[in-house]
Amino acid sequence: MTQKTAFIGLGSMGYGMAKSAVRAGHTTYGFDVNPEKTAKFLANGGTAGSLIEVAKTLDAIVISVLNAAQAQDVLFGVNGIVPMMRQGAVVVSCVTVAPDFARAMAEQCQSTGVLYLDAPISGGVKKAAEGNLSIMASGTNEAFAAAEPILNALAATIFNVGDAAGAGSAMKAVNQLLAGVHIAAMAEALTFGMTQGISPDNFVNVISQCAGTSWMLEDRAPHIVAGDYTSQSTVNIWPKDLRIVLEIAKSTNFETPVTSAALQQFLAASESGLGQEDDSAIVKIYARRAGLTLPGEN
Amino acid sequence: MTQKTAFIGLGSMGYGMAKSAVRAGHTTYGFDVNPEKTAKFLANGGTAGSLIEVAKTLDAIVISVLNAAQAQDVLFGVNGIVPMMRQGAVVVSCVTVAPDFARAMAEQCQSTGVLYLDAPISGGVKKAAEGNLSIMASGTNEAFAAAEPILNALAATIFNVGDAAGAGSAMKAVNQLLAGVHIAAMAEALTFGMTQGISPDNFVNVISQCAGTSWMLEDRAPHIVAGDYTSQSTVNIWPKDLRIVLEIAKSTNFETPVTSAALQQFLAASESGLGQEDDSAIVKIYARRAGLTLPGEN
Repeated sequence: MTQKTAFIGLGSMGYGMAKSAVRAGHTTYGFDVNPEKTAKFLANGGTAGSLIEVAKTLDAIVISVLNAAQAQDVLFGVNGIVPMMRQGAVVVSCVTVAPDFARAMAEQCQSTGVLYLDAPISGGVKKAAEGNLSIMASGTNEAFAAAEPILNALAATIFNVGDAAGAGSAMKAVNQLLAGVHIAAMAEALTFGMTQGISPDNFVNVISQCAGTSWMLEDRAPHIVAGDYTSQSTVNIWPKDLRIVLEIAKSTNFETPVTSAALQQFLAASESGLGQEDDSAIVKIYARRAGLTLPGEN
Repeated sequence: MTQKTAFIGLGSMGYGMAKSAVRAGHTTYGFDVNPEKTAKFLANGGTAGSLIEVAKTLDAIVISVLNAAQAQDVLFGVNGIVPMMRQGAVVVSCVTVAPDFARAMAEQCQSTGVLYLDAPISGGVKKAAEGNLSIMASGTNEAFAAAEPILNALAATIFNVGDAAGAGSAMKAVNQLLAGVHIAAMAEALTFGMTQGISPDNFVNVISQCAGTSWMLEDRAPHIVAGDYTSQSTVNIWPKDLRIVLEIAKSTNFETPVTSAALQQFLAASESGLGQEDDSAIVKIYARRAGLTLPGEN
């Protein structure tokens, strides 16, 4: 079963997801605030059309924008799309937001008869392009049913983590807590090793086969070995996502000392002008403090 | 080629390693300060004999004691074994120690013609019992050659991380930094998830397949789900190992904010009487603070 779908937000994740939808045979519109990205998608299998004109014909929209404010604007802003959608169409939100925000969006959609799936993603740029993401989704049975064809095009694994919006975003916050801490710990350990004469290359070869390994270490540490900080997922993602974790934690007086320590390192990286680099560039904060020369540096 | 070997320290790791040596056909003596452990090993394939009497006939000793002080005592204490060993025999030290300590032991061995391999291990109790450990070893070519038969009985992967003692211990410190942080982060994330309605079971099922996973999460979080804190690797290991990391870091003015945050949680667990429980019991610190009821608790 193919659907008529629009992807809003064609960043590194959204673009790969939209391409996966095209490959699966869905009629796929793609839009981004950056017109170059929209044009690139059109030239690579996207269907031409104005969002306002096609809105009422869509079965689903998939939003993959940067944050809650952008999601709010896309859905319910001045040119918000939800009021233009038909009853029974579904909003699939892949944006990392607080559970309360996801619940609020779902309620607002419901008031116009539009379904909402709280559907954060995990897996990185490569899996997005392959249609092999993990999706941690929550919502009503109706929302899952309406979104199923497009989810199948995007994901290798779809976790149903609850019957209402909010649970998906909570699971994503848990995942981001770990992923962020693991990137910071990888950077801390890699540079600590360098102070003891262990090369970044040797670090990756050995630790990736020992109990100290993590998904993030195996994915990101090779960027440091290659000295290549071309952004796949930027440093600036992490102050945003870890602050979501800390806000949720604060609301229940939950203490997150390890997460807080990791956040400080991402903030230091962001404040040092590394915000748009690949998140593995957090290692530069450690290296500068310790006077270490990383691969690719002079 | 089979060797005559003695294992000193028959804790959860040492016992499994000694059994792997027996299985590989080596003549294997085993000793522990706890006579019950020594007797258990004798009843399960160990060779009978007093350490002092067999010392000069040994090809290798493998030490797997708790810390540097015990290693020092075993090797060079009042009844230290090294002065009794023949020239060209090898000490394989699997103890987690500071690189400086490993270098000092190697030098002291060298002065009596005994070889020393700085050979910390990774992989946990199960892999120790299977003979499938990872060993991050450093030492002279002679030390590697003398230790090779026994290393092959213990390990699936032997990393040669340097030509002198110290490098192996440095790599182990790097691994422990990550492993300790990952256990603490797992506990923090699991309980954070519980505050948002995510069960520990659901946490493991989803996150182990997402970018937030780690070796430690997949190994330890199931203990929490099962409510089983039977010690495989105790809480008390971590204040010791992470302090080794911090001491090394301090010696080069290297800052380890994420590691320090994790250490505080292990110290809190140890001070709360959880020191002898499985290291996954660090989760109880988070759960108590937040008033959460873990699986298996009333």
